[in-house]
Amino acid sequence: MPEPSVIRDVVARYVEGLASGNAADVAALYAPEATLEDPVGSGVHRGRDAITAFYADVERVRMRTDLLAVRVAGDSAAFHFRVRTELPDGAVEVEPIDVMTFDEDGRITSMRAFWSPEDVHPAA
Amino acid sequence: MPEPSVIRDVVARYVEGLASGNAADVAALYAPEATLEDPVGSGVHRGRDAITAFYADVERVRMRTDLLAVRVAGDSAAFHFRVRTELPDGAVEVEPIDVMTFDEDGRITSMRAFWSPEDVHPAA
Repeated sequence: MPEPSVIRDVVARYVEGLASGNAADVAALYAPEATLEDPVGSGVHRGRDAITAFYADVERVRMRTDLLAVRVAGDSAAFHFRVRTELPDGAVEVEPIDVMTFDEDGRITSMRAFWSPEDVHPAA
Repeated sequence: MPEPSVIRDVVARYVEGLASGNAADVAALYAPEATLEDPVGSGVHRGRDAITAFYADVERVRMRTDLLAVRVAGDSAAFHFRVRTELPDGAVEVEPIDVMTFDEDGRITSMRAFWSPEDVHPAA
Protein backbone atom coordinates (compact mmCIF):
# COMPACT_ATOMS: atom_id res chain seq x y z
CA MET A 1 0.00 0.00 0.00
CA PRO A 2 1.50 3.40 -0.91
CA GLU A 3 2.16 5.95 1.82
CA PRO A 4 -0.60 8.55 2.31
CA SER A 5 1.90 11.23 1.27
CA VAL A 6 2.45 9.45 -2.08
CA ILE A 7 -1.31 9.26 -2.67
CA ARG A 8 -1.73 12.95 -1.81
CA ASP A 9 1.06 13.86 -4.21
CA VAL A 10 -0.50 11.90 -7.11
CA VAL A 11 -3.90 13.50 -6.46
CA ALA A 12 -2.29 16.96 -6.55
CA ARG A 13 -0.41 16.13 -9.76
CA TYR A 14 -3.63 14.79 -11.30
CA VAL A 15 -5.59 17.96 -10.56
CA GLU A 16 -2.71 20.14 -11.80
CA GLY A 17 -2.32 17.92 -14.88
CA LEU A 18 -5.92 18.53 -15.93
CA ALA A 19 -5.15 22.25 -16.05
CA SER A 20 -1.81 21.86 -17.81
CA GLY A 21 -3.68 20.17 -20.64
CA ASN A 22 -1.36 17.29 -21.58
CA ALA A 23 -3.40 14.09 -21.96
CA ALA A 24 -0.35 11.81 -21.99
CA ASP A 25 0.96 13.30 -18.74
CA VAL A 26 -2.37 12.78 -17.01
CA ALA A 27 -2.77 9.25 -18.39
CA ALA A 28 0.80 8.42 -17.24
CA LEU A 29 -0.42 8.71 -13.63
CA TYR A 30 -2.54 5.59 -14.24
CA ALA A 31 -1.46 1.94 -14.11
CA PRO A 32 -1.54 0.24 -17.55
CA GLU A 33 -4.69 -1.79 -16.78
CA ALA A 34 -6.49 0.95 -14.84
CA THR A 35 -10.17 1.79 -15.15
CA LEU A 36 -11.87 5.17 -15.39
CA GLU A 37 -15.57 5.98 -14.92
CA ASP A 38 -16.41 9.67 -15.35
CA PRO A 39 -19.13 10.32 -14.40
CA VAL A 40 -20.13 7.22 -12.42
CA GLY A 41 -22.83 5.37 -14.38
CA SER A 42 -21.57 6.46 -17.81
CA GLY A 43 -19.52 3.34 -18.57
CA VAL A 44 -15.99 2.22 -17.75
CA HIS A 45 -12.88 3.01 -19.83
CA ARG A 46 -10.18 0.37 -19.39
CA GLY A 47 -6.45 0.52 -20.13
CA ARG A 48 -3.90 3.24 -20.87
CA ASP A 49 -4.98 3.82 -24.51
CA ALA A 50 -8.64 4.29 -23.64
CA ILE A 51 -7.66 6.54 -20.74
CA THR A 52 -5.35 8.68 -22.90
CA ALA A 53 -8.17 9.04 -25.43
CA PHE A 54 -10.54 10.13 -22.66
CA TYR A 55 -8.16 12.89 -21.56
CA ALA A 56 -7.62 14.10 -25.12
CA ASP A 57 -10.50 16.46 -24.36
CA VAL A 58 -8.38 18.27 -21.79
CA GLU A 59 -6.00 19.27 -24.55
CA ARG A 60 -8.80 20.96 -26.47
CA VAL A 61 -10.10 23.30 -23.78
CA ARG A 62 -8.58 25.76 -21.35
CA MET A 63 -9.18 24.72 -17.75
CA ARG A 64 -8.32 25.97 -14.33
CA THR A 65 -8.46 23.55 -11.42
CA ASP A 66 -8.37 23.89 -7.63
CA LEU A 67 -8.10 21.06 -5.15
CA LEU A 68 -10.63 21.71 -2.37
CA ALA A 69 -10.22 18.66 -0.08
CA VAL A 70 -8.46 15.28 -0.10
CA ARG A 71 -9.16 12.35 2.21
CA VAL A 72 -6.87 9.31 2.13
CA ALA A 73 -7.99 5.94 3.56
CA GLY A 74 -6.11 2.69 3.01
CA ASP A 75 -5.08 2.41 -0.66
CA SER A 76 -7.73 4.94 -1.69
CA ALA A 77 -8.40 8.64 -1.86
CA ALA A 78 -11.54 10.73 -2.24
CA PHE A 79 -11.13 14.35 -3.23
CA HIS A 80 -13.25 17.37 -4.00
CA PHE A 81 -12.01 19.82 -6.62
CA ARG A 82 -13.16 22.65 -8.83
CA VAL A 83 -12.83 22.70 -12.61
CA ARG A 84 -13.39 25.97 -14.47
CA THR A 85 -13.56 25.48 -18.22
CA GLU A 86 -13.45 28.29 -20.77
CA LEU A 87 -16.08 27.72 -23.46
CA PRO A 88 -17.00 29.91 -26.43
CA ASP A 89 -20.15 31.09 -24.64
CA GLY A 90 -18.38 31.77 -21.33
CA ALA A 91 -16.74 29.88 -18.49
CA VAL A 92 -18.47 27.06 -16.62
CA GLU A 93 -17.60 25.46 -13.30
CA VAL A 94 -18.17 22.06 -11.75
CA GLU A 95 -16.90 20.69 -8.44
CA PRO A 96 -16.74 16.89 -8.74
CA ILE A 97 -15.85 14.42 -6.01
CA ASP A 98 -13.50 11.76 -7.37
CA VAL A 99 -12.48 8.45 -5.81
CA MET A 100 -9.20 6.76 -6.78
CA THR A 101 -7.43 3.54 -5.81
CA PHE A 102 -3.66 3.13 -6.06
CA ASP A 103 -1.16 0.30 -6.51
CA GLU A 104 2.08 -0.24 -4.56
CA ASP A 105 3.90 2.16 -6.88
CA GLY A 106 1.38 4.96 -6.37
CA ARG A 107 -0.15 4.55 -9.81
CA ILE A 108 -3.89 5.08 -10.14
CA THR A 109 -5.65 1.72 -10.60
CA SER A 110 -9.18 3.14 -10.76
CA MET A 111 -10.88 6.51 -10.89
CA ARG A 112 -14.60 7.17 -10.42
CA ALA A 113 -15.94 10.71 -10.74
CA PHE A 114 -19.15 11.72 -8.96
CA TRP A 115 -20.94 14.62 -10.64
CA SER A 116 -23.89 15.15 -12.96
CA PRO A 117 -24.73 17.71 -15.64
CA GLU A 118 -26.91 19.60 -13.15
CA ASP A 119 -23.76 20.33 -11.10
CA VAL A 120 -22.26 22.33 -13.99
CA HIS A 121 -23.02 26.04 -13.70
CA PRO A 122 -21.79 29.32 -15.22
CA ALA A 123 -18.60 30.49 -13.54
CA ALA A 124 -18.96 33.40 -11.13
CA MET B 1 -32.45 3.59 -10.03
CA PRO B 2 -33.78 6.13 -7.52
CA GLU B 3 -34.27 9.75 -8.58
CA PRO B 4 -31.37 12.09 -7.73
CA SER B 5 -33.74 14.03 -5.45
CA VAL B 6 -34.43 10.84 -3.45
CA ILE B 7 -30.69 10.16 -3.08
CA ARG B 8 -30.08 13.76 -1.97
CA ASP B 9 -32.84 13.50 0.60
CA VAL B 10 -31.44 10.28 2.09
CA VAL B 11 -27.94 11.80 2.30
CA ALA B 12 -29.38 14.83 4.12
CA ARG B 13 -31.34 12.59 6.50
CA TYR B 14 -28.22 10.50 7.13
CA VAL B 15 -26.09 13.51 8.05
CA GLU B 16 -28.88 14.93 10.25
CA GLY B 17 -29.43 11.49 11.79
CA LEU B 18 -25.82 11.31 12.97
CA ALA B 19 -26.39 14.50 14.94
CA SER B 20 -29.77 13.46 16.32
CA GLY B 21 -28.02 10.48 17.89
CA ASN B 22 -30.50 7.64 17.30
CA ALA B 23 -28.63 4.58 15.99
CA ALA B 24 -31.81 2.75 14.94
CA ASP B 25 -32.99 5.74 12.88
CA VAL B 26 -29.66 5.99 11.07
CA ALA B 27 -29.47 2.22 10.49
CA ALA B 28 -33.05 2.26 9.13
CA LEU B 29 -31.78 4.26 6.14
CA TYR B 30 -29.82 1.15 5.07
CA ALA B 31 -31.08 -1.88 3.14
CA PRO B 32 -31.14 -5.08 5.26
CA GLU B 33 -28.09 -6.61 3.54
CA ALA B 34 -26.12 -3.38 3.22
CA THR B 35 -22.40 -3.00 3.86
CA LEU B 36 -20.55 -0.29 5.75
CA GLU B 37 -16.79 0.46 5.69
CA ASP B 38 -15.77 3.41 7.91
CA PRO B 39 -13.01 4.31 7.35
CA VAL B 40 -12.15 2.56 4.08
CA GLY B 41 -9.59 -0.14 4.79
CA SER B 42 -10.82 -0.87 8.33
CA GLY B 43 -13.05 -3.84 7.47
CA VAL B 44 -16.62 -4.21 6.24
CA HIS B 45 -19.69 -4.42 8.51
CA ARG B 46 -22.52 -6.33 6.84
CA GLY B 47 -26.25 -6.39 7.59
CA ARG B 48 -28.66 -4.28 9.62
CA ASP B 49 -27.61 -5.66 13.05
CA ALA B 50 -23.91 -4.98 12.46
CA ILE B 51 -24.74 -1.55 11.11
CA THR B 52 -26.97 -0.68 14.07
CA ALA B 53 -24.17 -1.76 16.41
CA PHE B 54 -21.71 0.44 14.52
CA TYR B 55 -23.93 3.50 14.98
CA ALA B 56 -24.48 2.79 18.69
CA ASP B 57 -21.45 5.07 19.15
CA VAL B 58 -23.45 8.03 17.85
CA GLU B 59 -25.79 7.62 20.80
CA ARG B 60 -22.94 7.97 23.26
CA VAL B 61 -21.48 11.28 22.09
CA ARG B 62 -22.86 14.70 21.25
CA MET B 63 -22.26 15.57 17.61
CA ARG B 64 -23.00 18.41 15.28
CA THR B 65 -22.96 17.75 11.55
CA ASP B 66 -22.97 19.97 8.46
CA LEU B 67 -23.35 18.79 4.89
CA LEU B 68 -20.76 20.61 2.77
CA ALA B 69 -21.28 19.14 -0.73
CA VAL B 70 -23.23 16.31 -2.38
CA ARG B 71 -22.63 14.89 -5.86
CA VAL B 72 -25.07 12.34 -7.29
CA ALA B 73 -24.10 10.09 -10.22
CA GLY B 74 -26.15 7.10 -11.34
CA ASP B 75 -27.25 5.08 -8.30
CA SER B 76 -24.49 6.60 -6.17
CA ALA B 77 -23.64 9.68 -4.18
CA ALA B 78 -20.40 11.13 -2.85
CA PHE B 79 -20.64 13.79 -0.17
CA HIS B 80 -18.39 15.90 1.98
CA PHE B 81 -19.54 16.77 5.48
CA ARG B 82 -18.28 18.04 8.82
CA VAL B 83 -18.65 16.21 12.12
CA ARG B 84 -17.96 18.07 15.35
CA THR B 85 -17.85 15.75 18.35
CA GLU B 86 -17.87 16.91 21.96
CA LEU B 87 -15.30 14.95 23.98
CA PRO B 88 -14.32 15.30 27.64
CA ASP B 89 -11.08 17.06 26.63
CA GLY B 90 -12.76 19.41 24.12
CA ALA B 91 -14.46 19.26 20.75
CA VAL B 92 -12.85 17.67 17.68
CA GLU B 93 -13.77 18.00 14.02
CA VAL B 94 -13.35 15.81 10.97
CA GLU B 95 -14.64 16.35 7.44
CA PRO B 96 -15.00 12.93 5.80
CA ILE B 97 -15.97 12.21 2.21
CA ASP B 98 -18.47 9.34 2.09
CA VAL B 99 -19.63 7.33 -0.92
CA MET B 100 -23.00 5.55 -0.88
CA THR B 101 -24.92 3.35 -3.30
CA PHE B 102 -28.70 3.06 -3.24
CA ASP B 103 -31.36 0.53 -4.23
CA GLU B 104 -34.59 1.19 -6.14
CA ASP B 105 -36.34 2.21 -2.93
CA GLY B 106 -33.67 4.74 -2.00
CA ARG B 107 -32.20 2.59 0.75
CA ILE B 108 -28.44 2.68 1.26
CA THR B 109 -26.85 -0.54 -0.05
CA SER B 110 -23.27 0.42 0.75
CA MET B 111 -21.39 3.17 2.54
CA ARG B 112 -17.65 3.79 2.41
CA ALA B 113 -16.13 6.63 4.44
CA PHE B 114 -12.85 8.23 3.36
CA TRP B 115 -10.93 9.81 6.25
CA SER B 116 -8.00 8.94 8.47
CA PRO B 117 -7.06 9.76 12.08
CA GLU B 118 -4.76 12.53 10.83
CA ASP B 119 -7.84 14.35 9.46
CA VAL B 120 -9.28 14.71 13.00
CA HIS B 121 -8.32 18.04 14.58
CA PRO B 122 -9.39 20.16 17.57
CA ALA B 123 -12.50 22.18 16.74
CA ALA B 124 -11.96 25.88 16.12
